[in-house]
Amino acid sequence: MVLNKIGHILKDYNDFAIVSHVSPDGDSIGSMLGLFNTLKDFGKSVDLFVDDILPEKYSFLTGFEHIKRYNTGSKYSCLIILDCGDVDRLGELKSLLNSSDIIINIDHHISNTLFGDINYVDSNASSVGEIIYQILKINGYNISKNTAMCLYTSILTDTGGFKYSNTTSMTFNIVADLINTGINFSDIYSKIYDSRTLSQTKLLGKVLSTLEIYYDNKVAVLTMPYKLLDECNAKEKDADEFINFARNIDTVEVGVFIKEVNDLKCRVSLRSKNYVDVSKIASYFSGGGHIRAAGCTIEGSISEVKNKILDAVKTVLEVKYNK
Amino acid sequence: MVLNKIGHILKDYNDFAIVSHVSPDGDSIGSMLGLFNTLKDFGKSVDLFVDDILPEKYSFLTGFEHIKRYNTGSKYSCLIILDCGDVDRLGELKSLLNSSDIIINIDHHISNTLFGDINYVDSNASSVGEIIYQILKINGYNISKNTAMCLYTSILTDTGGFKYSNTTSMTFNIVADLINTGINFSDIYSKIYDSRTLSQTKLLGKVLSTLEIYYDNKVAVLTMPYKLLDECNAKEKDADEFINFARNIDTVEVGVFIKEVNDLKCRVSLRSKNYVDVSKIASYFSGGGHIRAAGCTIEGSISEVKNKILDAVKTVLEVKYNK
Repeated sequence: MVLNKIGHILKDYNDFAIVSHVSPDGDSIGSMLGLFNTLKDFGKSVDLFVDDILPEKYSFLTGFEHIKRYNTGSKYSCLIILDCGDVDRLGELKSLLNSSDIIINIDHHISNTLFGDINYVDSNASSVGEIIYQILKINGYNISKNTAMCLYTSILTDTGGFKYSNTTSMTFNIVADLINTGINFSDIYSKIYDSRTLSQTKLLGKVLSTLEIYYDNKVAVLTMPYKLLDECNAKEKDADEFINFARNIDTVEVGVFIKEVNDLKCRVSLRSKNYVDVSKIASYFSGGGHIRAAGCTIEGSISEVKNKILDAVKTVLEVKYNK
Repeated sequence: MVLNKIGHILKDYNDFAIVSHVSPDGDSIGSMLGLFNTLKDFGKSVDLFVDDILPEKYSFLTGFEHIKRYNTGSKYSCLIILDCGDVDRLGELKSLLNSSDIIINIDHHISNTLFGDINYVDSNASSVGEIIYQILKINGYNISKNTAMCLYTSILTDTGGFKYSNTTSMTFNIVADLINTGINFSDIYSKIYDSRTLSQTKLLGKVLSTLEIYYDNKVAVLTMPYKLLDECNAKEKDADEFINFARNIDTVEVGVFIKEVNDLKCRVSLRSKNYVDVSKIASYFSGGGHIRAAGCTIEGSISEVKNKILDAVKTVLEVKYNK
C-alpha cells in the first residue's frame, strides 16, 4: 500500500526536501510544516521550499521561518512535493526535480499528473493536511502539538472553516483527534479568520459605501476606484474577500466587484449563489473561472464597465430590468 | 443513569411539551426541533413553545412553524425544558411548570438551578444539541436527516462555527456522525453565517466609515449616529456584529462601538482580544458583562461619550496617549 511505502521512506531516508506550490496557502504551508515538524522530531534533515512570498498570517506555525525561496544547488535523497497538481506549480523550484533520488507526490487534486516516483493522490481528502495526518497515523507516528497546529491549519483553511462541501465525516474525526493534543484551536481560528489590517478595514468601509443593487435586488455591485488604495494605504489583494459582502446579501444571486486598474480598464470579480453560471459571463469578456466564482478584465471606465457587465448579467439572469 | 431514565420517558410517555428560553438562538431552536423531529417519527404528540419572536433564519429547520408563543391551557404528561439555566428564562411560559406530570431539565449552563424532576446538566457540552444527540444515541434512536440538520445547527451556532473553546473532540466526532446522514451542512452554514440583509450591508459600510484608531493602534472606535438607521432602513440589532470589525483589526486590543440612542445618551459595546478586562471599563459606567465582551450606557453626545470611554480605556490600557 502506497501510504506504507511512503512511511518506509520517511523512516529509512535521512535527508529530505519538501516543496509546494506558488501562491502558497494555509493547506500548502500547513501540510509542509506538519510533515517537517514530525520528521525533525526524528532527527531528520529537512529543507523547505516555496517559490513565492509567504502569507505572514501563517508565521505562528513552527518551522515557518525555515521555508526558503531558492535552492542553491543542494541535493536530496528524497523530494516530497505537496498539494501540486503539476510540476509547473513549483515555479523555479521545478529544478529540484533533478536534484533528488526519489520523488514523492502527495496531493488531493483530481487533475494531478502523477509526476512522482511514488504518487498518492486522494481527491476525496479535504486537504493535503488530512492526507499527511493519515500517513503519519498509519505509520505509527505520534502527532505532536506542533504538528497538530500545522495540520489543523491545513484542514481549517482548505475547508473554509469546515464549511465547504469537501469537508467529510473523516475530516471532522481527524480534527477531533488533532484538538485532543491540546492545541489552542480557537486562537488559530481567530488568527486566520478574524483578522484584518487597519488598511483593509478602512478600505472595506469605503468599498461598501459604493454598494448598488439591481434587478429586483438579485445583483449587488461594489466598485473600487484605484485612488481608494492610496487613500487607505492598501493593496489590491487587501480587497480579495470583499466580493463576498456583495454575494452574501440575502436577496442577491450575483455579486459583482469592479476594481479600477487604470483609466482604461477594470478587473471584475463575479460570484453567484445558487443558479447563475458566472463563468459564462466572464468568458463572454474573455475571462474564466468556475460556475460560482469567475473573473475577467474589461476595457473602459468604472461606469462603462459596470454597464457592460450589468447588460451581460441581465441576459443570464433573464430578469426584468428594474433600475 | 439519567440519560437512560430520560430515554425511558421518551419511549413510555405519549404527549410532550418542549420549551426553551426567551431570546431564542440556534442552539435552543435546533435542540428543540431535533428532539421534536425524532419524537414525531415515533408517533408522539409534541407541542413546542418559546415566549419570543423567532429568528427567521432558522425557519428552514423542519418543525420551525410549529413553535408557538402561548399555551392556551393544555396539559402535558411530560414537559422538557431545554437550554434554560433557571425557570425565569421561560418568560410567561413559566406557567407550563404547573401543567405537566413530570419535568425534564436538560441544559449545559453550569449555573443551572436543577428545577426539574429529572435534571441532566452537562457543562462540558458545547450545546444542548450535543446533549440531545447523546440522549438519542444512548437510547438507540436512529438520527434522521431532519434531526441531524437541527442538531448540526445547534452545535454550529453555539460553537461559533466550531471556533469557540467550548468545542471539544466529542463535538467534532458528533458532527462527523451528523453529516454522515447526508445533510447539506455547507448550505446550512451559509444560511446562518454568510447572510446579511441589504440594510445591514449598507449600514455596515456607513459604520465602518466612522472608524477611528487610538493609542498606538490598540483601540478602534466605531460610531453609529441614530440617523444612519433611518438612512439604511435598518434596526439597531442589525448592527450587532459590527463591533467585531473594530476588534478584529490585527493591531487592536480593544474594540469600541458607540451607538447613539438619542441626543442625551449612547449605548457602548466593548470587546477585547487578549489582556484588557473590558467588564471593568463597563462597570465604571454602571454597565456589565464579561472580560472580553461588555457594555454600558453613557450620557452625552457621541463625541462626549467617546471622550469618556477613551479616558477609561486609557486608564486600563495604561498606554501613552498618542492621539
